[in-house]
Amino acid sequence: MGKARMLGLATDLYQLTMAAAYLSRGKTARATFELFVRKLPEQRSYLIAAGLEQALGYVRDLSFSEEETAYLRGLPIFSKVDGGFFDYLRDFRFSGEIEAVPEGRAVFAGEPLVRVTAPLIEAQIVETFLLATINFQTLIATKATRVVEAGQGRAIIEFGARRCHSFGAALYAARAAFIGGCVGTSNVEAGFQFGIPVFGTAAHSFTLAFEQEIDAFRAFYEVFPEQTTLLLDTYDTIRAAHLATEFGSGLRGVRIDSGDLGGLAREVREILDRAGMTGTKIMASSDLNEYKIDELVRSGAPIDLFGVGTDLSTSRDVPALGGVYKLVEIMTDGQAVPKMKLSREKLTYPRRKQVWRRIGDDGRYCGDTIGLADEREIPGEPLLQQVMVEGRIVPGLPTLQEVQAVAREEMERLPLELKSLHNPASYPAIYPVSYSARLEEERRKLQHELEE
Amino acid sequence: MGKARMLGLATDLYQLTMAAAYLSRGKTARATFELFVRKLPEQRSYLIAAGLEQALGYVRDLSFSEEETAYLRGLPIFSKVDGGFFDYLRDFRFSGEIEAVPEGRAVFAGEPLVRVTAPLIEAQIVETFLLATINFQTLIATKATRVVEAGQGRAIIEFGARRCHSFGAALYAARAAFIGGCVGTSNVEAGFQFGIPVFGTAAHSFTLAFEQEIDAFRAFYEVFPEQTTLLLDTYDTIRAAHLATEFGSGLRGVRIDSGDLGGLAREVREILDRAGMTGTKIMASSDLNEYKIDELVRSGAPIDLFGVGTDLSTSRDVPALGGVYKLVEIMTDGQAVPKMKLSREKLTYPRRKQVWRRIGDDGRYCGDTIGLADEREIPGEPLLQQVMVEGRIVPGLPTLQEVQAVAREEMERLPLELKSLHNPASYPAIYPVSYSARLEEERRKLQHELEE
Repeated sequence: MGKARMLGLATDLYQLTMAAAYLSRGKTARATFELFVRKLPEQRSYLIAAGLEQALGYVRDLSFSEEETAYLRGLPIFSKVDGGFFDYLRDFRFSGEIEAVPEGRAVFAGEPLVRVTAPLIEAQIVETFLLATINFQTLIATKATRVVEAGQGRAIIEFGARRCHSFGAALYAARAAFIGGCVGTSNVEAGFQFGIPVFGTAAHSFTLAFEQEIDAFRAFYEVFPEQTTLLLDTYDTIRAAHLATEFGSGLRGVRIDSGDLGGLAREVREILDRAGMTGTKIMASSDLNEYKIDELVRSGAPIDLFGVGTDLSTSRDVPALGGVYKLVEIMTDGQAVPKMKLSREKLTYPRRKQVWRRIGDDGRYCGDTIGLADEREIPGEPLLQQVMVEGRIVPGLPTLQEVQAVAREEMERLPLELKSLHNPASYPAIYPVSYSARLEEERRKLQHELEE
Repeated sequence: MGKARMLGLATDLYQLTMAAAYLSRGKTARATFELFVRKLPEQRSYLIAAGLEQALGYVRDLSFSEEETAYLRGLPIFSKVDGGFFDYLRDFRFSGEIEAVPEGRAVFAGEPLVRVTAPLIEAQIVETFLLATINFQTLIATKATRVVEAGQGRAIIEFGARRCHSFGAALYAARAAFIGGCVGTSNVEAGFQFGIPVFGTAAHSFTLAFEQEIDAFRAFYEVFPEQTTLLLDTYDTIRAAHLATEFGSGLRGVRIDSGDLGGLAREVREILDRAGMTGTKIMASSDLNEYKIDELVRSGAPIDLFGVGTDLSTSRDVPALGGVYKLVEIMTDGQAVPKMKLSREKLTYPRRKQVWRRIGDDGRYCGDTIGLADEREIPGEPLLQQVMVEGRIVPGLPTLQEVQAVAREEMERLPLELKSLHNPASYPAIYPVSYSARLEEERRKLQHELEE
């Protein structure tokens, strides 16, 4: 991740056409954009911010190669664009400031997760990649906290690479799932790149590759003593559980991957216990999600670990987060001019903002206020912190392990009703987020001006 | 894409632990795995195969760097594994054969999309990446055909990068959407890498960045004469449409991105037509999908192009495809031994298979037979073709444009009832896929043997 990459084309075309038009009009003044989610998905009562590290790495490394600018120059749409634009791209480096909510923190609708202040063109070009990165990792980190909560302390391992939206998505799904509390991933590249613990058992094909099931079990155990988790359901789970007793208490675990997971886990537990294998763990997998895990845990199924794939790694019930990136302020003649959009249902709040969070008497969060970044009177902890100055990442970003700890603490501070797996039934269960009086006043004033 | 990449760790851990166990037992015989979808998602009546080119590129380039093998060696689980395994990885190159259904072809449940025959370890390691690649692109190409069908000839542009599962996913979403019939994408990197036509208009922020809306319109038009699509809904769509008449018939298009798209399109069309701008196109966007487009088209809304984002690029209604990769045969003592899995609801068919497709009197596909690869008596066109020999890609893979043409032809040959946007109501609307008598017999025999 260290070396500079050419990422100039990792964007939507209109970012580059707008850039050319801005440049031709000399519109190079500084502007501020904010990235936020307008409305939480119906099945989510909070979000866990994630993806900032990759977003910042992109912004820092963003540049255009000769090959990339040549490609742009050859596009029909750029045929009449002045050569000065391509010179501009050739020298392009992001020079602005970024404030952001740290990874792992809980956020709510309307709250800026990232605030970018830079010359207009620079701030505009980064939109697409920032959104793709923050939207996706936030989506998965949030989903992971739900699955982890359902596990009530049982370990959750992320398993979903094969169903992800390409292997690149799998890599970041593993990272975000770890932030959300998974103990690890099956994804080796994610282990290599991010230091996430990697886990694995065996596939049905391994059992099938041997003439007898017990031969497969022995072959694996011989190479990985103390590290073996046997997959039981290739032919018959109960029969395989009996075979597994041959290995005694040195067997780390067994995995059940089909059928009535709760019922089978009970039978398998009994077989193992009778063989004195009380320390051998039972892992369950097979299209699991927070609801199925919740049911298994509540029913007392003796399952120690859950492997969760598709539903977690694609956030199957809510597979996209609608984060947006909106212009809120622009410098004009030395003045910061507020900006907002009036489109029906897509109205935005102008001005650079900050979010303040309050803690109630029970030690849990009790409400946020979104105000103007320079307000000084708003009680609570300000969430956005400076993470980039003049295109350089501010030293001291937390490690991934630290981010996971942040998210864990957030989960403890969230009001209990927000963590219900089912959508809060009544309005008061929604976390209270309000706008400061000064911000409301600014919005009203500007809206009135614009509507004239 | 040309140079060799180290992709060894782009897999699940268990592929590598199984590899070590296979090697220690000398299990290096050739085996065949097949990639298929057990069951179509409820909202899909067919799939359009996609992703093969990236899958083959991965298999061809797959190798392990020193750094990667050192990482594996340092993992606790590999602590007792013989050094010979790491030597094996250091020299690893895929040496096998691959047969596959060409990209763009329609496929159905149970039909192998990809068949890999190689030394057991090689065939096993590639599973995760193949699945992630084929599952995702097939998912999006299929979704795209639905959106394109709904458009009834109106152009569909893929727009969804910002909501994709990381920017890497966006790149392949754009490719797959193009296969499914989109005319292009907003994703510049996808244009650069795959030669897909790129499209763009302008964002609300562009309008906001100017003091007056008309200033923004003029600035853009000046730089991109004949190529300008003005975004109308930053403040008020109808007012903006009147402003747009200033540019006359040289204005390529306008875009409406919020509100009642059909009603606004009618009003805007009238304003443009009255100004003699009958050639100026109207584009609509705003959380569109096949159902909304179908409604707009059927209602006669004068919309010429649709920009489709989130729903298309994440296949939001069906965000994951459950493709699996199963061992079907393994060489033992010079004999090809059939393999199958008995797990409840996850039973597989043994043996190397081929799919034959028949065309009915109406020129449309009327049924497929899945049989043993070496059967010679089955009528119809065999779908799987050899695409890799001894680790080398067979020359003459189609270009992306050719693949798009293949998919277009498939859509014309699919039974009409399969293309209904709503799920076929009754069982006979499901496309008929059967297994050959010889294959059924093989399965019965093997199942009987295994259950003994």
